Amino acid sequence: MTRHLFYDDYSEGAHPALLEELARCNDDQQPAYGGDEHCRVAGGRIAALFDRPVDVHFVAGGTQANQVCLAAILRPHQGVIAPVSGHIAIHEAGAIEATGHKIIAVPAADGKLTPALIDEALLQHESEHTVMPRAVFLSQATELGTVYSRAELCAVAAHAHAHDLYVYLDGARLAMALASPEAGMTFADIADAGVDMLYIGGTKNGALCGEAIVILDRTLGDGFRYQMKQRGALLAKARLFGVQFRRFFDEDGLWFALGARANAQARRLAGGLESLGVELQHPPVVNQVFAILASDVAETLSAEWGFYVWERLPGRRLLIRLVCSWATPDEAIDAFLESLRRHL
Amino acid sequence: MTRHLFYDDYSEGAHPALLEELARCNDDQQPAYGGDEHCRVAGGRIAALFDRPVDVHFVAGGTQANQVCLAAILRPHQGVIAPVSGHIAIHEAGAIEATGHKIIAVPAADGKLTPALIDEALLQHESEHTVMPRAVFLSQATELGTVYSRAELCAVAAHAHAHDLYVYLDGARLAMALASPEAGMTFADIADAGVDMLYIGGTKNGALCGEAIVILDRTLGDGFRYQMKQRGALLAKARLFGVQFRRFFDEDGLWFALGARANAQARRLAGGLESLGVELQHPPVVNQVFAILASDVAETLSAEWGFYVWERLPGRRLLIRLVCSWATPDEAIDAFLESLRRHL
Amino acid sequence: MTRHLFYDDYSEGAHPALLEELARCNDDQQPAYGGDEHCRVAGGRIAALFDRPVDVHFVAGGTQANQVCLAAILRPHQGVIAPVSGHIAIHEAGAIEATGHKIIAVPAADGKLTPALIDEALLQHESEHTVMPRAVFLSQATELGTVYSRAELCAVAAHAHAHDLYVYLDGARLAMALASPEAGMTFADIADAGVDMLYIGGTKNGALCGEAIVILDRTLGDGFRYQMKQRGALLAKARLFGVQFRRFFDEDGLWFALGARANAQARRLAGGLESLGVELQHPPVVNQVFAILASDVAETLSAEWGFYVWERLPGRRLLIRLVCSWATPDEAIDAFLESLRRHL
Amino acid sequence: MTRHLFYDDYSEGAHPALLEELARCNDDQQPAYGGDEHCRVAGGRIAALFDRPVDVHFVAGGTQANQVCLAAILRPHQGVIAPVSGHIAIHEAGAIEATGHKIIAVPAADGKLTPALIDEALLQHESEHTVMPRAVFLSQATELGTVYSRAELCAVAAHAHAHDLYVYLDGARLAMALASPEAGMTFADIADAGVDMLYIGGTKNGALCGEAIVILDRTLGDGFRYQMKQRGALLAKARLFGVQFRRFFDEDGLWFALGARANAQARRLAGGLESLGVELQHPPVVNQVFAILASDVAETLSAEWGFYVWERLPGRRLLIRLVCSWATPDEAIDAFLESLRRHL
Repeated sequence: MTRHLFYDDYSEGAHPALLEELARCNDDQQPAYGGDEHCRVAGGRIAALFDRPVDVHFVAGGTQANQVCLAAILRPHQGVIAPVSGHIAIHEAGAIEATGHKIIAVPAADGKLTPALIDEALLQHESEHTVMPRAVFLSQATELGTVYSRAELCAVAAHAHAHDLYVYLDGARLAMALASPEAGMTFADIADAGVDMLYIGGTKNGALCGEAIVILDRTLGDGFRYQMKQRGALLAKARLFGVQFRRFFDEDGLWFALGARANAQARRLAGGLESLGVELQHPPVVNQVFAILASDVAETLSAEWGFYVWERLPGRRLLIRLVCSWATPDEAIDAFLESLRRHL
Repeated sequence: MTRHLFYDDYSEGAHPALLEELARCNDDQQPAYGGDEHCRVAGGRIAALFDRPVDVHFVAGGTQANQVCLAAILRPHQGVIAPVSGHIAIHEAGAIEATGHKIIAVPAADGKLTPALIDEALLQHESEHTVMPRAVFLSQATELGTVYSRAELCAVAAHAHAHDLYVYLDGARLAMALASPEAGMTFADIADAGVDMLYIGGTKNGALCGEAIVILDRTLGDGFRYQMKQRGALLAKARLFGVQFRRFFDEDGLWFALGARANAQARRLAGGLESLGVELQHPPVVNQVFAILASDVAETLSAEWGFYVWERLPGRRLLIRLVCSWATPDEAIDAFLESLRRHL
Repeated sequence: MTRHLFYDDYSEGAHPALLEELARCNDDQQPAYGGDEHCRVAGGRIAALFDRPVDVHFVAGGTQANQVCLAAILRPHQGVIAPVSGHIAIHEAGAIEATGHKIIAVPAADGKLTPALIDEALLQHESEHTVMPRAVFLSQATELGTVYSRAELCAVAAHAHAHDLYVYLDGARLAMALASPEAGMTFADIADAGVDMLYIGGTKNGALCGEAIVILDRTLGDGFRYQMKQRGALLAKARLFGVQFRRFFDEDGLWFALGARANAQARRLAGGLESLGVELQHPPVVNQVFAILASDVAETLSAEWGFYVWERLPGRRLLIRLVCSWATPDEAIDAFLESLRRHL
Repeated sequence: MTRHLFYDDYSEGAHPALLEELARCNDDQQPAYGGDEHCRVAGGRIAALFDRPVDVHFVAGGTQANQVCLAAILRPHQGVIAPVSGHIAIHEAGAIEATGHKIIAVPAADGKLTPALIDEALLQHESEHTVMPRAVFLSQATELGTVYSRAELCAVAAHAHAHDLYVYLDGARLAMALASPEAGMTFADIADAGVDMLYIGGTKNGALCGEAIVILDRTLGDGFRYQMKQRGALLAKARLFGVQFRRFFDEDGLWFALGARANAQARRLAGGLESLGVELQHPPVVNQVFAILASDVAETLSAEWGFYVWERLPGRRLLIRLVCSWATPDEAIDAFLESLRRHL
């Protein structure tokens, strides 16, 4: 096995079944801008999963999804409460601020908002001299590889609604979250919990590119296509997304299977690490493994394998992040472990 | 031949050669966000076509390309001069204004800016009470199916530079323009004429999706990737664009061939219309045919074929727009003409 | 009489009665940010003039008023229809676009919107590829010195509402308009006609600075103070505006008297010009006089007096604009006319 | 002595000398938009204080000054580092974000940035996935009533420049800071330390309204008046600011005297509190006094006197903020102390 990248879950192309489907549907003419048959069917399948009428729109990437959705939810003077580790808070180069909105970042060690953290933000934003909080930003799974349990999601959403805050969920890795027993929830549970808008991640779960925005509180959907266009998010050949998401949610449940596969590979990797006596920060909940290595070991390994150093720890140790995906071969994991074994 | 859509040049999927290439390169792992080998090679090929060092970035669609590029060129108080028919001026749902910039729209019957039109705009924008014009927006080919000749492009660019205006070119249909004898220019000619930034269209020329932004005045490239990210335009799997554009500019000149093919099909259609005695607004310059039909004929036709009514003319006549593409089969054109013949 | 400036109606300081009032109320402590007694009383007087409950807010200038109000009315994908000569369309350096909104500018020779002009704009903005028109911008008086009659205002407002467009009115020179028989309307008439939001001009009618925003459709007032703050428009010592507007609308009707005075001085000037055989573009409707002079005469005059050349006319003639105000002394007008007489 | 408000330093009107000057200059006609003689002279006096050529512009309020200045300094993808207690970070209702820029807020217990805090922010913002830090925001005095010493200011500015960050200073209470021995600096020292742009506060130091923006790095001044106009900050009668700031910096040093007076009154109040055995959080550095009172005492007092509760402390105690100003009479302080004495 040659060098493998554990940097992220988007280092490969698309799952072959999606490419095949794109090739199969390639020739037929379809209306542009999401008015095509594929988008229609995919949207219907997604609505069925949520078990209620919803609006579905497709965009090319996650930052774009977050930007378009939050700009649609908020009026100019309103802001969104997010964990400091939230993707919008730190890793979108100011995409939300670019639409004029403040992100009210609150510390959340595990990447998850709680009613108490929301209260803290509300307390500091009580008058017209501050931004008016009007939404909360949740990620499921979070950027730190954790998930909200069903009870946690219900609690945080109920608290948000009680304070007139919309609930927006970034589902870049929703497939991994739904496959995780720690989360223990379905699409319908997410809707029942009170999430108002979310996007279902495609890119990190095997799509060539594409995310599905789902508007559960349909009053928020007014003018949405205008806003997509205005943000450069309304693609002419949106069929590209329709074909993939229709296939994702075909009878064989491909989208679910890929999320489960990513988690399973992470567990395989984590198990191997533990067998070698490597300390994990915590057992993997989704497809990310956080392992603690001596600095020199980690550095030697990084010459052969791709992964990110997450944090420098005391005692010349490093916390490294290893990400598995639907595409991670067993052989890559085994070879990595073997390589590590030699260096320990 | 069943019903065919002449609405636009993006009703089909991708050219098969691009899909094949995507499938061929699918499995290899690559750095994300455009740092991959495919984007690198594609960028190199594009630089070679311009015959000089350039910065190349890939984004998913044309509105996004225009938005990111103009926002990178302009400071907050500056605006861009564009023809009223320019894509940014009317068909992007305010994407440029959403970044805070005014479009100074000037009337241009044929969709083309001229030194005189630029002067008109400058005359009305002379103090800090107005927006400061700082760029001009050209489309090659234009939204009206016309092209700038080499002399026209040189004249307008020189005039712009003489007045401290950057020259930005929307090349959504650049393939058709470069294939058109009326334009009579190459990539290198565009650079020599003084264009400062442009995008090379993929979507309307057979790509699954994707446009290549080319920064000729590289001083404008500072911070560009940040701004792409901030506008939701930096895709994780930008390899998708790299693979396609590398293939587009492979030795067989696929990108050029598809543009030429679209024009040829438009000429075939135009010739057939003329044989039937149908009046054309003007002979097709690129891949759009503007034909004048009696209202009742046009309406009958529209039940079977897809096309847009462009304008209502006196005498119960309609100006209709028929767009051909790389994917338009001869049979579709012939069947359309036969259908029309029966209704005349 | 020395050189006098007829450039505009804001070349002097404040009307002495306002300064006196500022001095009289200077020492008492008041809550900041518009929560003071003066703003409260002024707001009450304004509501009484409109003869209905309204929200009143005070800001420092007209561009700011337009910016804050339109940003409060429009959602991100929506635009405002305005005459090309509208202040927001050409003389605010892109202040509206800076909040993300497109101005849909329509030609209006006399500076006034009509139902037909609105229809034209609507016709070109019918889908999500264009901005969604959601408001109309009227100026009373207009930037060209014309006014809407009561019938015209009713017609344009009714047409706007019928097409789901809010009606916003820029009242920078509302005092002059209300004093004009051609307009023939009161504050209450403006409300009855269906205007949804407006600002009552102070700066051009003798205030040191300050405009009063009046929200007639109070559903538009939600979050307004937040948005004022966010745009830098919520002044700590907003009492400055409260004191002036309370005084403006004191029993002696100062605000009305100053508007009438400005118009009267323009009529005096216009009468004098006609006596000298000078051609007027049209009789003055408010406080602006548009006169046609031979170029050499105008140039000689401009060495001694301040005025703007509005347009170059055929036959070596110039259209000049002379603006009178509450502060224009009879002596200045007489001396100007005498000076002109000598040069004719 | 009746009830007095210690809420802030802007509960009164203007210092009488400013009102007199406004009255004295009221009648002369002057060019609008800051082109007047008063603004020219005031600008010259300010340049003399800084002992170098600078650009000076006047705006109505502090939030507006911060918004216009930072928007002029930053390109779209760039952000500003500020303490969490910085006015822009929490008390401007998202005014900076409304121009598209992220504020990178760092914890600073005393309201002051340090090289170490800047490094922390830089460390988390290293790639195009994050905003690019490009400026630091300092307040002198800070929102917490502290000041930068000359050495601290030099250190933070030098560190900022070494990392390619512009230094912006919010001088809402600069008069109090310059009057404070703890700061120990002059206008020229601020320039020598490396501040690139600042505003000199008028509103909180006795102006009717108005702040003077000073551009020390004049390369940042390009297009500044356009941007003022675009943000609604270019007032027609900017003479209002010119007259006041010319008077502020007249030979009698009014501006300096008012700052010193505010500080002196705070010291008088603090001394009285200490005599009564009241604990101060720290001795007053400028014009704010932070005192610790038993909750019941504070609540009783608040029925008669105006002040803000700053924080709830353990043991049923409250930290209250008492602000003095140029206008605070000795009698008000004495009466407040007497009132407190009775309730202790």
